[in-house]
Amino acid sequence: MSLSEFEIIQHYFKTAALMQNRSEVVLGIGDDGALLEIPDGHELAISTDVLVESVHFPSGASPEKIANRALAVNLSDLAAMGAKPLCFTLGLVLAEPTTIAIQVKGIVESGKALMRSTATAGESIYVTGTLGDGAIALASMGIDSHLGEGFRIEEGQASEQCRQYFEDAYFFPEPRIDFSRSCANFITSAIDISDGLVGDLAHICESSGVGALIETDKLPVSGSARCCVSNENLLRAALYGGDDYELCVTVAKENEEAFVSQAEKQGTGITRIGHIFEGDSVRLENSAGNSIALDQSAYQHFKD
Amino acid sequence: MSLSEFEIIQHYFKTAALMQNRSEVVLGIGDDGALLEIPDGHELAISTDVLVESVHFPSGASPEKIANRALAVNLSDLAAMGAKPLCFTLGLVLAEPTTIAIQVKGIVESGKALMRSTATAGESIYVTGTLGDGAIALASMGIDSHLGEGFRIEEGQASEQCRQYFEDAYFFPEPRIDFSRSCANFITSAIDISDGLVGDLAHICESSGVGALIETDKLPVSGSARCCVSNENLLRAALYGGDDYELCVTVAKENEEAFVSQAEKQGTGITRIGHIFEGDSVRLENSAGNSIALDQSAYQHFKD
Repeated sequence: MSLSEFEIIQHYFKTAALMQNRSEVVLGIGDDGALLEIPDGHELAISTDVLVESVHFPSGASPEKIANRALAVNLSDLAAMGAKPLCFTLGLVLAEPTTIAIQVKGIVESGKALMRSTATAGESIYVTGTLGDGAIALASMGIDSHLGEGFRIEEGQASEQCRQYFEDAYFFPEPRIDFSRSCANFITSAIDISDGLVGDLAHICESSGVGALIETDKLPVSGSARCCVSNENLLRAALYGGDDYELCVTVAKENEEAFVSQAEKQGTGITRIGHIFEGDSVRLENSAGNSIALDQSAYQHFKD
Repeated sequence: MSLSEFEIIQHYFKTAALMQNRSEVVLGIGDDGALLEIPDGHELAISTDVLVESVHFPSGASPEKIANRALAVNLSDLAAMGAKPLCFTLGLVLAEPTTIAIQVKGIVESGKALMRSTATAGESIYVTGTLGDGAIALASMGIDSHLGEGFRIEEGQASEQCRQYFEDAYFFPEPRIDFSRSCANFITSAIDISDGLVGDLAHICESSGVGALIETDKLPVSGSARCCVSNENLLRAALYGGDDYELCVTVAKENEEAFVSQAEKQGTGITRIGHIFEGDSVRLENSAGNSIALDQSAYQHFKD
């Protein structure tokens, strides 16, 4: 028997497991609207996404995986704001194709949210975790990415273990909430790496009116990524790949030691990948100090 | 030239007209998330919808009409909460079919939101405006409704003027924000009539643990509605039609005079259509005092 809209809501969503009894949620599901109370001295951070089957997630993936990814991807935005997750709203279109409209809401101390517009020259650039896994995961699952046809898993090089690693990276990314909450005081600007490092760092540059230099030999990549793609594609994935949901943050020189120490204490791997300079664009340089040209086709979103 | 996602956002949405400089919106479009500040002593009311072309709005309607309806339908939910509109978020899937994910946000004094769960026996039931226009509008535009094939415009009876009236009723419903803000102190429970009067009143009954008697001869209908459908279908539209976005509210006896006077002063037409009793279901009665059976097929959402 197919369930009505109201039965689906009652059965799957108006459940004790999803009603977490947060005091800030004055009224949850089941009225014309919900009611939220924001503690004094705090702001509400919101981030929203609409995900369509076959476009934003593979057709046929299990509901658990799809739900986890939809939530994690948006929690990553909250992490990039330095906010503590509070609740989410969900709109579902259960048709062909399935569409998921999700909005996560978090709480952040007033005036303390991390933004894109507050980087200044001289600051160091750090990223969490490893880069490129998101794009390699798409290739591993046979899904096209904006990196084009030349971007592919090397024949015979992806072990079953690697494939599992990338599938987990794709469906179960770890939003860097604890890291950003713990290290927020040392961070001057932040963005999550959903469009690719270069593209997202360009957003910081544009919003802050600065330039950014990336030292390409410093980019952190996973062992599984090294196994599965050529060196050239590895660099492309790390620079332009997107879907990584790691954070890219800037840190002032005087706070760098404290920042590194706090991140280590908190348990999140971080890597210094470059610095902010007075300018207006993202530049790449290898360890020999040679400039590397930006791959404009791999990176559609950048504007001068 | 087709525009990128970022260009569309920049060109159409990050505009002065849409940035209304509300002090509560600390940070709008353009970062990982937005930031809202809720004034002390207030709560944030939110209501969300996902609308799919050809399902929730007719294919081929103008963007202005679609946008207006999407916003108005959700503002109607805020009206039913007694909240003052603040801002909205929008997620768009520009594909075949177009999908719109909208979430409106409003502000309401803490503890003062209007809910479904607070009706008590003895109170009067009022509705704003006229009922049934939403369902007749669908029929007028040739769109099927849950009222079935027998529900149709009478041949030759719908003038061009009537068709225009119903198209406006569908695309430009007037959310009853001013009414609910103005009369909130006299209202004990409220819901907006999106699923049909009987279905929505049943939500109040279920949430409040009461019964509701509707006096069918008192239901307010528009002159255009009278012109276009048979008497039988007129009653069906008013009772079960939905898409009206009027408010159904309950009012305690001692506040009734003040409520009616305030609604008149504010300029919203209201009609007393029945009362709440100790019970657990919606009942219908005509002016002769005879019971009328509920049409269960027209009204799928009701549960005992």
